Amino acid sequence: MYKINDNYQKLPGSYLFSTIAKKVNAYSEANPDKKIIRLGIGDVTQPIAPAIIEAMHKAVDEMGHAETFHGYAPDLGYEFLRSAIVKNDYQARGCDITVDEIFVSDGAKSDSGNIQEIFAQNNRIAVCDPVYPVYVDSNVMAGRTGTYDPETEMWSDVIYMPCTMENNFVPEFPKETPDIIYLCLPNNPTGTTITKDQLQGWVDYANKNKAVIIYDAAYEAYISEENVAHSIYECEGAKTCAIELKSFSKNAGFTGVRLGYTVVPKELKCGEVSLNAMWARRHGTKFNGAPYIVQRAGEAVYSEAGKTQLKEQVAYYMKNAKAIKQGLRDAGYTVFGGVNAPYIWLKTPGEMTSWEFFDDLLARANVVGTPGSGFGPSGEGYFRLTAFGSYENTLAALERIKML
Amino acid sequence: MYKINDNYQKLPGSYLFSTIAKKVNAYSEANPDKKIIRLGIGDVTQPIAPAIIEAMHKAVDEMGHAETFHGYAPDLGYEFLRSAIVKNDYQARGCDITVDEIFVSDGAKSDSGNIQEIFAQNNRIAVCDPVYPVYVDSNVMAGRTGTYDPETEMWSDVIYMPCTMENNFVPEFPKETPDIIYLCLPNNPTGTTITKDQLQGWVDYANKNKAVIIYDAAYEAYISEENVAHSIYECEGAKTCAIELKSFSKNAGFTGVRLGYTVVPKELKCGEVSLNAMWARRHGTKFNGAPYIVQRAGEAVYSEAGKTQLKEQVAYYMKNAKAIKQGLRDAGYTVFGGVNAPYIWLKTPGEMTSWEFFDDLLARANVVGTPGSGFGPSGEGYFRLTAFGSYENTLAALERIKML
Repeated sequence: MYKINDNYQKLPGSYLFSTIAKKVNAYSEANPDKKIIRLGIGDVTQPIAPAIIEAMHKAVDEMGHAETFHGYAPDLGYEFLRSAIVKNDYQARGCDITVDEIFVSDGAKSDSGNIQEIFAQNNRIAVCDPVYPVYVDSNVMAGRTGTYDPETEMWSDVIYMPCTMENNFVPEFPKETPDIIYLCLPNNPTGTTITKDQLQGWVDYANKNKAVIIYDAAYEAYISEENVAHSIYECEGAKTCAIELKSFSKNAGFTGVRLGYTVVPKELKCGEVSLNAMWARRHGTKFNGAPYIVQRAGEAVYSEAGKTQLKEQVAYYMKNAKAIKQGLRDAGYTVFGGVNAPYIWLKTPGEMTSWEFFDDLLARANVVGTPGSGFGPSGEGYFRLTAFGSYENTLAALERIKML
Repeated sequence: MYKINDNYQKLPGSYLFSTIAKKVNAYSEANPDKKIIRLGIGDVTQPIAPAIIEAMHKAVDEMGHAETFHGYAPDLGYEFLRSAIVKNDYQARGCDITVDEIFVSDGAKSDSGNIQEIFAQNNRIAVCDPVYPVYVDSNVMAGRTGTYDPETEMWSDVIYMPCTMENNFVPEFPKETPDIIYLCLPNNPTGTTITKDQLQGWVDYANKNKAVIIYDAAYEAYISEENVAHSIYECEGAKTCAIELKSFSKNAGFTGVRLGYTVVPKELKCGEVSLNAMWARRHGTKFNGAPYIVQRAGEAVYSEAGKTQLKEQVAYYMKNAKAIKQGLRDAGYTVFGGVNAPYIWLKTPGEMTSWEFFDDLLARANVVGTPGSGFGPSGEGYFRLTAFGSYENTLAALERIKML
């Protein structure tokens, strides 16, 4: 008789954004006349840039002719895309990363969910709290997190690194030594980040403790300050301790196009075993490449026209971020983020919990945000708004919030 | 100190098709003047059908305008695609499958590699031998297969169901009772299949023994005989014991477009636990949907024009299959398959092993095939050729093989 993976049964409730979608749909059906503004899920709204649209049309045409048709992609991704990534995202920043260290995928969500598979079950993971829920959830599914305490909303075997107002949202080295450290910087959801020196501290800590860092740089394109690293490989020694995850979703609006990549340096070894070889094996066995059309779209991100157009797109969202931050401040809220990230992180007013504020905002302002507690226990009492709406909707949402 | 998943170290050698690619590249570099014909990897060569190209262009245009832009897709896939699947692949065949039982993915390789995650580690799996290597390899990575014996090339905890000339390539109920049964029908690599009555026998067996069947129907479009099921849900009782995997790679040439789906019926339950809910949770946590453009391409597969064009495409490949089968027979080979599948399965001549025949064929005829032993120990002494080449190349390859 077959048995299920009962770690799944340990997961409390459903995935955060599925829950939000259900709540919004229910409200919407009950109140069909209300115009809801969504600043909840981190989904972009601006159309794909013209240079990328052009590249996709060209690739679609190629697929329609036998001489230019493309079947299965190379295991790690097309050379044209991996070269563009290496040149623009690494060599241009002085990082010595090579083409065979780049693994093209269908997005950073898949990679951040799957990367834990190449590690043993008995590793202790450490996560910033609050943070993107996939890190913990995927480790729960793998049986790596112990038991869940509904009271504290914490897992017995997860090391939480609280990031709150009290420590300026900067994680501190934990008391217990972790084996795998997830860092998402700029952070989702707090929108804050750390300096390059502080990141160097984490690299040194990982090397000293023989821990591995899973570095999620999905929001790298939104960094505006000088002393912030765009890649962990800007830090010395990172190649022996860090895996970097990158997404095209936020810098190029690819949430519905689906493309990402993971960097696993060849120097990253556990004893004699190369993690690069392990991830290559995982890719070769359980994945069949990102679509050719999408990989060509990714290449166009790095074209001169693409770069110019995407710089404007990022600036558009950051204008929203600025407007939200200022607007909320004017309305008396305590706000963070929005400088190096498209997320605004606010303290819920009074004694309201995150979900209470979510319900209130949905019912009275018809604005959807994301409850901070959905990102971890230390997110309780906070709330996330995204800058990914249209400028008009963003201003309209602010007007409604100010009226509360 | 972090530890790796050492199940990966148990995997012998690299993934079959990576090994073949390396061998062919090495030969090609050493013999740049030789024109190699590839009938090895099951990759298609015909361009994407016009109706699908048109749909993709339209979807690319939509992505370029704010009003029609699409961000994150719904967790399980777009309703328009899931409805088309239900209507054409199930309702039209009298199978009572509903939209919320369909999970759209980036392809059947991902799904067949990932589906084992929702099961406990201590399940015994049974596989046809030979078969598509991903079933066993993904279970090795999960630590479900015991130890490997290099002598027999078998895993201690895997139940092998030999499919050879002696039993007409039809798997028999194993002596030990399995928990999870992988069936790929029509079979890759043997190209053979079983009757609907025989499949009903497997469904009854699974229900009686509380086993679950992972049914890979990737080659369903190539079925030409009357009494063969196109879906396992044509059998009575399949909804309480079977998960079905489907691919668009072979029926629509999507190997480089990437689209597939999995059916997990709501009636499939382990005690009180719904496997449909588990797979939904996995999808929601570790996957972010297939690209919008690709899902629109999938929809076009079911349009009237799409259906007509793809019927021609399948016929084109089956004409190749017929030519290969007849040509090899004329040359004195013992051949199977090619009637309900695009694969020809042949007995290697004399006492040659599969890899010896591979090397010989590459060196003397410059034709690439796939060694049968790469699909499992009972594949030793057999060899797979695919009908996915162009007609011209297929005939040219046959001429060369006949000259050996």
